[in-house]
Amino acid sequence: MSQFDLVIRGARCATASDVFVADIGIVDGRIHTLGRSIGPGRREIDAGGRWVLPGGIDSHVHVDQRQTGGGLTADTFATGSVAAACGGTTTMIPFATQDRGQSLRWAIEEYHDRARGKTAIDYNFHLIVADPTAEALSEELPDIVAGGCTSLKFFTVYDDVMLKDRQLLDAMAAARCEGAMVMVHCENAAGVAWMTERLLERGLHAPKYHPAARPAIMEQEAVYRMTAFAELTGVSLMVVHVSSGDSIALIAAARRRGVQVHAETCPQYIALDSTDLDRPGLEGAKALCSPPPRWRGNEAAIWQGLEDGFFDVFSSDHSPYRFDSSGKFPHGRDVPFNRMSSGVPGIETRSPILFSEGVRKGRIDINRFVALNSANAAKIYGLYPRKGTIAVGSDADLCIWDDRYETIIDNGLLHHSVDYTPYQGMRITGWPAITLLRGEVVAEYHSFCGTSGNGRYVPAEKRMSAGAVTPTQAELSKLGVRLASGQ
Amino acid sequence: MSQFDLVIRGARCATASDVFVADIGIVDGRIHTLGRSIGPGRREIDAGGRWVLPGGIDSHVHVDQRQTGGGLTADTFATGSVAAACGGTTTMIPFATQDRGQSLRWAIEEYHDRARGKTAIDYNFHLIVADPTAEALSEELPDIVAGGCTSLKFFTVYDDVMLKDRQLLDAMAAARCEGAMVMVHCENAAGVAWMTERLLERGLHAPKYHPAARPAIMEQEAVYRMTAFAELTGVSLMVVHVSSGDSIALIAAARRRGVQVHAETCPQYIALDSTDLDRPGLEGAKALCSPPPRWRGNEAAIWQGLEDGFFDVFSSDHSPYRFDSSGKFPHGRDVPFNRMSSGVPGIETRSPILFSEGVRKGRIDINRFVALNSANAAKIYGLYPRKGTIAVGSDADLCIWDDRYETIIDNGLLHHSVDYTPYQGMRITGWPAITLLRGEVVAEYHSFCGTSGNGRYVPAEKRMSAGAVTPTQAELSKLGVRLASGQ
Amino acid sequence: MSQFDLVIRGARCATASDVFVADIGIVDGRIHTLGRSIGPGRREIDAGGRWVLPGGIDSHVHVDQRQTGGGLTADTFATGSVAAACGGTTTMIPFATQDRGQSLRWAIEEYHDRARGKTAIDYNFHLIVADPTAEALSEELPDIVAGGCTSLKFFTVYDDVMLKDRQLLDAMAAARCEGAMVMVHCENAAGVAWMTERLLERGLHAPKYHPAARPAIMEQEAVYRMTAFAELTGVSLMVVHVSSGDSIALIAAARRRGVQVHAETCPQYIALDSTDLDRPGLEGAKALCSPPPRWRGNEAAIWQGLEDGFFDVFSSDHSPYRFDSSGKFPHGRDVPFNRMSSGVPGIETRSPILFSEGVRKGRIDINRFVALNSANAAKIYGLYPRKGTIAVGSDADLCIWDDRYETIIDNGLLHHSVDYTPYQGMRITGWPAITLLRGEVVAEYHSFCGTSGNGRYVPAEKRMSAGAVTPTQAELSKLGVRLASGQ
Amino acid sequence: MSQFDLVIRGARCATASDVFVADIGIVDGRIHTLGRSIGPGRREIDAGGRWVLPGGIDSHVHVDQRQTGGGLTADTFATGSVAAACGGTTTMIPFATQDRGQSLRWAIEEYHDRARGKTAIDYNFHLIVADPTAEALSEELPDIVAGGCTSLKFFTVYDDVMLKDRQLLDAMAAARCEGAMVMVHCENAAGVAWMTERLLERGLHAPKYHPAARPAIMEQEAVYRMTAFAELTGVSLMVVHVSSGDSIALIAAARRRGVQVHAETCPQYIALDSTDLDRPGLEGAKALCSPPPRWRGNEAAIWQGLEDGFFDVFSSDHSPYRFDSSGKFPHGRDVPFNRMSSGVPGIETRSPILFSEGVRKGRIDINRFVALNSANAAKIYGLYPRKGTIAVGSDADLCIWDDRYETIIDNGLLHHSVDYTPYQGMRITGWPAITLLRGEVVAEYHSFCGTSGNGRYVPAEKRMSAGAVTPTQAELSKLGVRLASGQ
Repeated sequence: MSQFDLVIRGARCATASDVFVADIGIVDGRIHTLGRSIGPGRREIDAGGRWVLPGGIDSHVHVDQRQTGGGLTADTFATGSVAAACGGTTTMIPFATQDRGQSLRWAIEEYHDRARGKTAIDYNFHLIVADPTAEALSEELPDIVAGGCTSLKFFTVYDDVMLKDRQLLDAMAAARCEGAMVMVHCENAAGVAWMTERLLERGLHAPKYHPAARPAIMEQEAVYRMTAFAELTGVSLMVVHVSSGDSIALIAAARRRGVQVHAETCPQYIALDSTDLDRPGLEGAKALCSPPPRWRGNEAAIWQGLEDGFFDVFSSDHSPYRFDSSGKFPHGRDVPFNRMSSGVPGIETRSPILFSEGVRKGRIDINRFVALNSANAAKIYGLYPRKGTIAVGSDADLCIWDDRYETIIDNGLLHHSVDYTPYQGMRITGWPAITLLRGEVVAEYHSFCGTSGNGRYVPAEKRMSAGAVTPTQAELSKLGVRLASGQ
Repeated sequence: MSQFDLVIRGARCATASDVFVADIGIVDGRIHTLGRSIGPGRREIDAGGRWVLPGGIDSHVHVDQRQTGGGLTADTFATGSVAAACGGTTTMIPFATQDRGQSLRWAIEEYHDRARGKTAIDYNFHLIVADPTAEALSEELPDIVAGGCTSLKFFTVYDDVMLKDRQLLDAMAAARCEGAMVMVHCENAAGVAWMTERLLERGLHAPKYHPAARPAIMEQEAVYRMTAFAELTGVSLMVVHVSSGDSIALIAAARRRGVQVHAETCPQYIALDSTDLDRPGLEGAKALCSPPPRWRGNEAAIWQGLEDGFFDVFSSDHSPYRFDSSGKFPHGRDVPFNRMSSGVPGIETRSPILFSEGVRKGRIDINRFVALNSANAAKIYGLYPRKGTIAVGSDADLCIWDDRYETIIDNGLLHHSVDYTPYQGMRITGWPAITLLRGEVVAEYHSFCGTSGNGRYVPAEKRMSAGAVTPTQAELSKLGVRLASGQ
Repeated sequence: MSQFDLVIRGARCATASDVFVADIGIVDGRIHTLGRSIGPGRREIDAGGRWVLPGGIDSHVHVDQRQTGGGLTADTFATGSVAAACGGTTTMIPFATQDRGQSLRWAIEEYHDRARGKTAIDYNFHLIVADPTAEALSEELPDIVAGGCTSLKFFTVYDDVMLKDRQLLDAMAAARCEGAMVMVHCENAAGVAWMTERLLERGLHAPKYHPAARPAIMEQEAVYRMTAFAELTGVSLMVVHVSSGDSIALIAAARRRGVQVHAETCPQYIALDSTDLDRPGLEGAKALCSPPPRWRGNEAAIWQGLEDGFFDVFSSDHSPYRFDSSGKFPHGRDVPFNRMSSGVPGIETRSPILFSEGVRKGRIDINRFVALNSANAAKIYGLYPRKGTIAVGSDADLCIWDDRYETIIDNGLLHHSVDYTPYQGMRITGWPAITLLRGEVVAEYHSFCGTSGNGRYVPAEKRMSAGAVTPTQAELSKLGVRLASGQ
Repeated sequence: MSQFDLVIRGARCATASDVFVADIGIVDGRIHTLGRSIGPGRREIDAGGRWVLPGGIDSHVHVDQRQTGGGLTADTFATGSVAAACGGTTTMIPFATQDRGQSLRWAIEEYHDRARGKTAIDYNFHLIVADPTAEALSEELPDIVAGGCTSLKFFTVYDDVMLKDRQLLDAMAAARCEGAMVMVHCENAAGVAWMTERLLERGLHAPKYHPAARPAIMEQEAVYRMTAFAELTGVSLMVVHVSSGDSIALIAAARRRGVQVHAETCPQYIALDSTDLDRPGLEGAKALCSPPPRWRGNEAAIWQGLEDGFFDVFSSDHSPYRFDSSGKFPHGRDVPFNRMSSGVPGIETRSPILFSEGVRKGRIDINRFVALNSANAAKIYGLYPRKGTIAVGSDADLCIWDDRYETIIDNGLLHHSVDYTPYQGMRITGWPAITLLRGEVVAEYHSFCGTSGNGRYVPAEKRMSAGAVTPTQAELSKLGVRLASGQ
């Protein structure tokens, strides 16, 4: 090795399990060498003993999407990815959405078109399946998985995308067969609709009634149902944006039954609560998302799950609706809470919030931070080992953290196209000083200095295809049934 | 008091909580006096220190009904009630069924017609609601409750009767408003259909595959969902025919959350298991019911629930399909398990099985037997204190038990119109020697000696009407929301 | 029957399971007849449709006892029993205490002497075993059980009475053999001592630190240990004065494992909390008892256990220490919390508090009140059916409740010899208007009108002697071990 | 860097979280560089794409020790460490034992003397504290921790070493203060003694009764007690050799309460069960250890805990007693089970069993293997990052695994001084082909090729000293108590 493209000297590196001090030698955008006093680089950066961590992976992002039941997202792949980079995120996994009647292939192609050449960081897609026809599942899905999109997302709520129980089962079984995994937004549609009507008929229209319309028990109902369906079909499941302690308990119980269930939570469930929706005028709408932030005190259960290894992934669920326009209020401003767009932005603040509230306040150690911020998402969504760690052969997606940098979140600092942040005024300690994508500096503190459009699509590995059909002989044996050979 | 109509001397009486020795003085069909050496009766029976217990209440019975997805029930009100009486049951609560498109009122009237003047024991109805239109709920339900039918039954499975989530919520809310309570058959319809298809496509048609097609996790899914809906609507819920230990755990957890959930189990979940469906030829169909008997060993969890007070009610779910005809096999005998009628008969054997397996084997004491066999059903379904106990003022529905009588269950002994019993050959110790309905002897051991048609409709009390609309101020307070007065 | 000694007309009677309206005919102090319009009595009382309930049983009472680590009890059998009667309690079970070195027989005889001819209500004894020598267990215990004292109490804390693990096991095994049952005061002695020292060394002496010195986890430790020992020895166990929700969970789990564990709680765990110990000066000492009242909010878990049937017994743990003298402060008033007498009085207020807070506020129904107030204690401690119910043959221990009577608890109203009540100022709705002991009126509202010394010792039935020695064949079979016959 | 001392080419490396292919450049016994095509080494090994994993850490080992209640260990530091090396273990943490009356300092010095210059692999000590005098805790412990021994072990059973509750609390508090952590052998001494007597008095002497004498509930009792004491004192706890599913549940619950509890299990709880003690003659004694292997089927719960991340550490509890001599039978061969030495050897088979049964059978992935086999022990016991991972700067303790190598465990293959292995005949796939200690090859397959005495003492880091005294202000606040400043 004559010379590295780049050497980062004196890096205090952390992975999901390790901490070590090393020089990082980068060649062709990948980590080539980790060592003490390694050879020279054409370019060198002195980390000076600071934390060097894998770049963040935000695996729950909405950009360039007309979101279900909501307004237009303000962020495109271009603006969203720049904001991500400025918050230390080097890979994002936004959604490609199938509309009813549309083919899956067409949907994924459309989003490829939207992203290609415009995105500042690397990306993959989750495919929202709104119309799981037999044809789509049997003829299109294999190609899509082969094309590197291996995570499907289903909804149990929202009229335009929700699947019925039978559709969920068929789609889960197909996913398992093809080696894809499945994400689910868990809320019981009928329960939410019924509660919403109860509130509206009493004239309770303000944003503060939104959490009452979507009670935790209706999230839990869907969580139980989806883990039961995963048990039946054998698919690997991710429950996204888990917001309540009882949902945690249900998922933990499913894991003990042997069901493979992953769990995600988001900044809005530790940094916001239902009282944030009770602000003067429409200000409360700035914290309106689904599932809603719960009662004050509930965040302790979420933290417990982040600390003890229950949660796999900490994502933003970035939903960029402008407050001054039809984004947040597609039906006008004088409407009840259920006609406002549900969702909050957060792609740029996600990692700093977890670092500041988690690492700096002593709730989680640096390895757990890496796991939640990067490594687990990479593994679960098939991007590992290319993404999510600092190891020989991995992409040189790295953040040099300034863990003493203090700031107060202000929307003026942020790069998304949204005119507010629900975390306005929050005190933060720690921010990525330098963020590198495949060995190129893309951001320094709050400044983007990369090349828009430099982001690449990273195809995901599929899971091992599971051949066995339910019920298996093991399941039948428990019932005292012995199959003849070949059945 | 000059003279009693009847005196039972030397009765060792048990209620749900007490045991006492007394003479029982009966006037006009009711218990007038309990005491030592009370005055003479026009007729006297010497109990000779034997157990005298409240007559059984079988609160889950199908007679004179075309059952959902199944064949014709072989028993009419006449034959079913005679069989009941010969097993020590003096009150039954069969179902009146609303067909889709039919009015509730018409359904209840039709069943009144079927029962009136033909029934040998007292009765009430549960009303199966298959079509909960807004009109039915708002205009018909109040009259039906006022008429003494205060328990509604909903299905989450079976195409011709199942309700969707939104229908369930609306019907539960209406029930709560009117002071009715709600029973639910809990199985996830899509899950059962999906599993059934998986089995059928592999050519697995025999009755022994029925339990695999309806796995416990699909019962549990519906149990969780129904307790969640009961939590939302505030209705009082009965989960019928609970068959698994995990369902028990879910219901217990709901109770700890403050949801009012009652639970029922049946003889088929302690005396049968999935291996009973694996008998030569079609013999396995004699144990085919839904939910199915589970794996061997599961019955221990059911017994635990009977012993420790978890279960409120032990009913038969009497489903009288003849084996030699279109009853059990409405689509012929050469069909897969899912086209056979699901259900087993058991109205006459219910009490003796619980007495023999429970009391005589030392698993439950006599008070718990009375609670499970009579008292709790009377209280939950609004027939108490007229039914379900031995107390001054209650109906003189009494069984004098011969607790040393030994027999082996044989269908030849039984009075139902079914040509088999799934309990054939089971050894029983204890049988009602004399059964009285309102002071009249209706059965002696296996002989009916009452008057067919003597049974009366017993109107049920409604529950306190719950005025409050969800969400309540208490629920909102937890979310930090304060209502203005009047909202 | 020519004439009854007494007839109570128009009684709205409740037992642990039933409600009925009847006239109650009493002969020789027992209930002879229950009926409608029964014959005349030499004396008659018109209940006028009021609740007539079984007299209260207070099964946890300290009188005429130098309590462990504490001062002299102010109440004698005479004063304590009069106070009990004025609160609707007709049977009490105080403790007889064995001192170390003393024989069990002598201890029980001594307490018989103290009680005989001086007690206003009926009574039995629990025997505190402080010195379970082999001789005491093998030679004395059988006679003591035969003499009608069938409940032993053990301590896991307090130097002068606590038993070590091995002593507990031997004493439990002996109790099981003889058909006795076992009560345990559960707190870990070392943990309490260690925490106390930690507080004292920081100069934290006030009563408000008492709850910190005896944390719930130290109660739970002993609860887990005692249920494990009960599992090993097969004895029937009562955990007295359960004060925390986690203790409830541990006991419930033991029951599910098949261990026979009863549970008791007391007024101080629903009507007091730790903030009551933080009053000016020494006032906080008026709420100082062990286990201590827990944090505010904990009472919800206790109520849940009272409502859902978890708790069997609601007793007072009446510990009558005077505040103005060496009772509460045996070592003077200027001492830290751990040198004050631990315990609060409550024999007279127990039933009214449960009636007012439980029945009148809609938390429990009248049957559950009877179970907690009387019936369960009678059954568990072997006094049933003589005590604890309204049934033919039972003692006519009855309370006619005035359920609309309103009062405010004031120590001036009470009949104990203590100069304070921790419930001073508490608003109460409902009080026994007339209390009868074996058919004789002993109290009317707050006035005692019985005959002191009229109370009788009621011998308790022993439990079925359990012959089997641990481990049983069943336990060994699980380990794959088969005993030769005879082993 | 001109030249490496050693380069391992083409290593498929795994850490607790990562997998990467790299060359490993080693200088002065440490990993200097990880990279692609790194420079030359004076010596090179071609890994050829095989797994290269961190050397094993066996953190529960008895050598050169007269074990509590047992015979002499057959292995010295010399023989035990050679056996370890041949099984892929490069660090062991045996016990130094304080006898009663002995100083802690003396005990640790004695074991340093026994190990120094004789041990083939690196080592640290856990210090068994049998006599925690105030002087030992306050004067000796700080020096011992400063000297790099930071883990103390306590026993709740065995007369010669067990601590009483108060001693445990004091010693835990002292440990917390000094930054040490605490391991506990959890079994209730009185319960075990009592059960043993019950068996012996019935003449049940064979090894197969050993599991009956030490029932799981007695392990669980001690587990609950120790987690409660850890909660009180704030110390970090390791529950060693966890053998039952209910113990797992208790520890998991303690973690949810916020107690820092680690958990260890051993090969004997997955590869043996109670039936292994029921072999002809004394053969059953070869599986006799404490806690005992449990009933067949229990191992599923242990596997679940290994798979889902519950267990931190998989150690051998190597207890090398010879079968042909006074090792296993210090009191002769004709004695009951309780007088035989309790313990089984396993230092050489530990890693291969976990690899074969875990990784090769698909129960755990390679990262989890590294965590259980090396990384977690290194972190918990303060040896990380020097030991337990493959990272720049870490010791080059490495195993090149031959994951296709098949063998059958035979004692003739093993290097310990014991004349049997309980795993005789077990089929194994996978064995370390080459094991390196600090860059030197010490074993190839079953051959030791290192230098005895080359092992070094590795001082352990202490934990952060926890200054706060229990109870904290947070704990008091829950009780409504506010401290004055300075208290």
